[in-house]
Amino acid sequence: MPTATSTGLLRHTDASLPERIAESAATIDGVLTHREVLAWLESRQPHHVQEVRRIPFAELGSWGFDPGTGNLAHASGRFFSVEGLRVRSDFGPVREWSQPIIHQPEIGILGIAVREIDGVLHCLMQAKAEPGNPGGLQLAPTVQATRSNYTRVHGGRVVPYLEQFAPADPRQVIADVLQSEQGAWFYRKRNRNMVVEVGPEVEAGDDFRWLTLGQLHRLLHLDNVVNMDARTVLSCLPAAADRGGATRPAIARSADGSAGSLHTTAEVLSWVTRMRTEHELVTERAPLREIERWHQTDSAIAHESGRFFSVVAVDVQAGCREVDSWQQPLLEPHGVGIVALLVKRFDGVMHALINARVEPGYLDVVELAPTVQCVPENYRHLPPDSQPPYVDLVRARRPERTWFDVELSEEGGRFYDARSRYVILEVDDGFSVRPDGQFHWLTLSQLTVLLQHRHYLNVQARTLVAALRALI
Amino acid sequence: MPTATSTGLLRHTDASLPERIAESAATIDGVLTHREVLAWLESRQPHHVQEVRRIPFAELGSWGFDPGTGNLAHASGRFFSVEGLRVRSDFGPVREWSQPIIHQPEIGILGIAVREIDGVLHCLMQAKAEPGNPGGLQLAPTVQATRSNYTRVHGGRVVPYLEQFAPADPRQVIADVLQSEQGAWFYRKRNRNMVVEVGPEVEAGDDFRWLTLGQLHRLLHLDNVVNMDARTVLSCLPAAADRGGATRPAIARSADGSAGSLHTTAEVLSWVTRMRTEHELVTERAPLREIERWHQTDSAIAHESGRFFSVVAVDVQAGCREVDSWQQPLLEPHGVGIVALLVKRFDGVMHALINARVEPGYLDVVELAPTVQCVPENYRHLPPDSQPPYVDLVRARRPERTWFDVELSEEGGRFYDARSRYVILEVDDGFSVRPDGQFHWLTLSQLTVLLQHRHYLNVQARTLVAALRALI
Repeated sequence: MPTATSTGLLRHTDASLPERIAESAATIDGVLTHREVLAWLESRQPHHVQEVRRIPFAELGSWGFDPGTGNLAHASGRFFSVEGLRVRSDFGPVREWSQPIIHQPEIGILGIAVREIDGVLHCLMQAKAEPGNPGGLQLAPTVQATRSNYTRVHGGRVVPYLEQFAPADPRQVIADVLQSEQGAWFYRKRNRNMVVEVGPEVEAGDDFRWLTLGQLHRLLHLDNVVNMDARTVLSCLPAAADRGGATRPAIARSADGSAGSLHTTAEVLSWVTRMRTEHELVTERAPLREIERWHQTDSAIAHESGRFFSVVAVDVQAGCREVDSWQQPLLEPHGVGIVALLVKRFDGVMHALINARVEPGYLDVVELAPTVQCVPENYRHLPPDSQPPYVDLVRARRPERTWFDVELSEEGGRFYDARSRYVILEVDDGFSVRPDGQFHWLTLSQLTVLLQHRHYLNVQARTLVAALRALI
Repeated sequence: MPTATSTGLLRHTDASLPERIAESAATIDGVLTHREVLAWLESRQPHHVQEVRRIPFAELGSWGFDPGTGNLAHASGRFFSVEGLRVRSDFGPVREWSQPIIHQPEIGILGIAVREIDGVLHCLMQAKAEPGNPGGLQLAPTVQATRSNYTRVHGGRVVPYLEQFAPADPRQVIADVLQSEQGAWFYRKRNRNMVVEVGPEVEAGDDFRWLTLGQLHRLLHLDNVVNMDARTVLSCLPAAADRGGATRPAIARSADGSAGSLHTTAEVLSWVTRMRTEHELVTERAPLREIERWHQTDSAIAHESGRFFSVVAVDVQAGCREVDSWQQPLLEPHGVGIVALLVKRFDGVMHALINARVEPGYLDVVELAPTVQCVPENYRHLPPDSQPPYVDLVRARRPERTWFDVELSEEGGRFYDARSRYVILEVDDGFSVRPDGQFHWLTLSQLTVLLQHRHYLNVQARTLVAALRALI
């Protein structure tokens, strides 16, 4: 950590941070063993039982449809609302449509506290249930806080450890960056992704445990264990030092992460700028009741085709000791997604095939996405040339070229059973990229540099960056 | 430049780019001497005479007020429009207001072509007149193109050299980044700032000349010679190699530009993230006719107080050989601005005092601004504690501590006589920063790294970054 010199200037000893991150990633058993972590997570289950039941909108309690706009919102004006969005773009098989979208303009904090224990960095992870999660508890960051939580404007409930993040001691901040969430479902939603180093005075409560990065990487290989918020915060960590090793590909490093890369960083940044300049995306918020082709029943708002997603309502009965219950809307995607990264070595350096993707909810038109990101069912009615590129390649994957193949779910506080198969697949030497300029090969180092800055990588790509690191 | 190896991979020789930039900055006479550049600019004056005359709105030709909204727009829907904006913020002496604002959603290209001549990089600069410019021609980038120009959708006129930028050869791109313009006057306006290296086949036409960076730095010290578009593109250049030297402060370098800096880059990025998270800015586009406290006469839309700016109309009679004339609205600021950077050495390394500034037209709430950026007259009616910080310090500047003191104008195609005094002032050792967290000391290296990415530095700060480099 930086220390003050006699002149009042900082001596930056951050050069050691990459080493410390590498050390944590190489540590498979920390203060707990892998088995102990799983046992702890299992032991917290009874404390977080949530009975989630689909209900009609009429039973939503404090939530209701605005008589004028038809927007679905909470009586207090807090939390989020479901509104309409009209979209016009010059991109993809469908150029103009309307859809419901979640509007949540506040910026929340997703934070992981890290602490050195026995000389190794550990992350303070939380066992957390959320109503949309497929099955039980997942591992969450130390803190998932809304703006109401950290400004205390509405006297929101106290979030444990929040004081480590808002305000954080600037010299203890390891990562702090605004990142977007699902641009197909959220309108310009973003969260502040933070990693902050804390001292030995910070201890783990019952629902919290200190885990090394190596342990988190191992847990990331299990279906539906590490939640989306934890994955996105982990992806924003700075680069680990390269520790060499005979069996894995060398990841070359340079000031801007571009050594050994197929494209210079100037080329990559220029590509993103060009995509943002050339693609047109015009969105207009609209009353939910005016959205064409979406129909509302007692208990769901759905597209006339049955595709995409529904807006539904649930009742949640939670807790065994503290009785707690509430009702809320959730967005329920139709079908399990495929989110895949094709990877390939160039001169021994691993590159990932990244797609410049337009989603209506992005603040800035285009973000960098995995090679494949879709729910195949949504495209079934379209002709072959409108199918998402490379999806057949992913479906036909052979186990010996598949590095990562795990089902993970998205934010369970907004999405109901939103599951995707996350895949990392090494392509054959003969593979070549479509020449349409929508895809570029980037190294993990380049992705890591971009993740210091807001809104380059979308939330799905961030999960796969965390997964790539879990492979090394 | 990168060259292809036998494996098809690029060998990055960009390591030499900082050297080449430093060499160009050190070259005071290029293919032309300073005197020849001034003589050429003078010689182009008769070819670009513009007679600019204030006219009533009724004589605006194809421009008119929409009968419903009162917005001022061109009949074709092209160019830009003047609309209304309602603003609510938690920041500054006035928290809620309405104002006219220029809406121009297209992204244009501002590009400088660079070419090695006699082993030294030269920039292709253009002599360009614009109706709002105070006095005659200014030096502009190689290209100032609208989206209509480069997509040719509307069959816009051919812009010389545009083919070097759209599309550019990705391997020739030195800088390519979206940057905002005046957030007080433009609603989310931004341009693509590009520097592209070209070959010897590109030659300078009559209105164009090749200038070294050293020559541009010298010209930047003259009042109203280097135009805003040229200044912003120059600011996006990568760092020059540090060539040492006894008389000037050492600018330490590191991978992320933070060596020798008071704050690590992680701290700086965290500061920006925190400012964006904590400041609330809610803007809503509104019909111009509904904007309170702004009144419209035959020939101006102005605030009832006489402060801020007016929207006016002009007739332009241009050219001596090619007859060309048109009418257009312009925004006319009231009063000359003060835009100043306080600088101070810490352990021998120069730091600039940067302000996190909220402007209603920013895409992302906050951008980094100079220490002082205001038109003092706009604050005259407010109490002392609502005056812009540090402005008195700038007004009382002593010549021996003043490094830069030049009057420069903003974009003459949108703003009428928008002049500011741009100042760089070294503060005394005893100077200390207000503890409100709105100001941070950053090094030039850190600013240069941030300028690779969109929307960190505002357009006024970018001019002063170009000016800082002109001092070295």
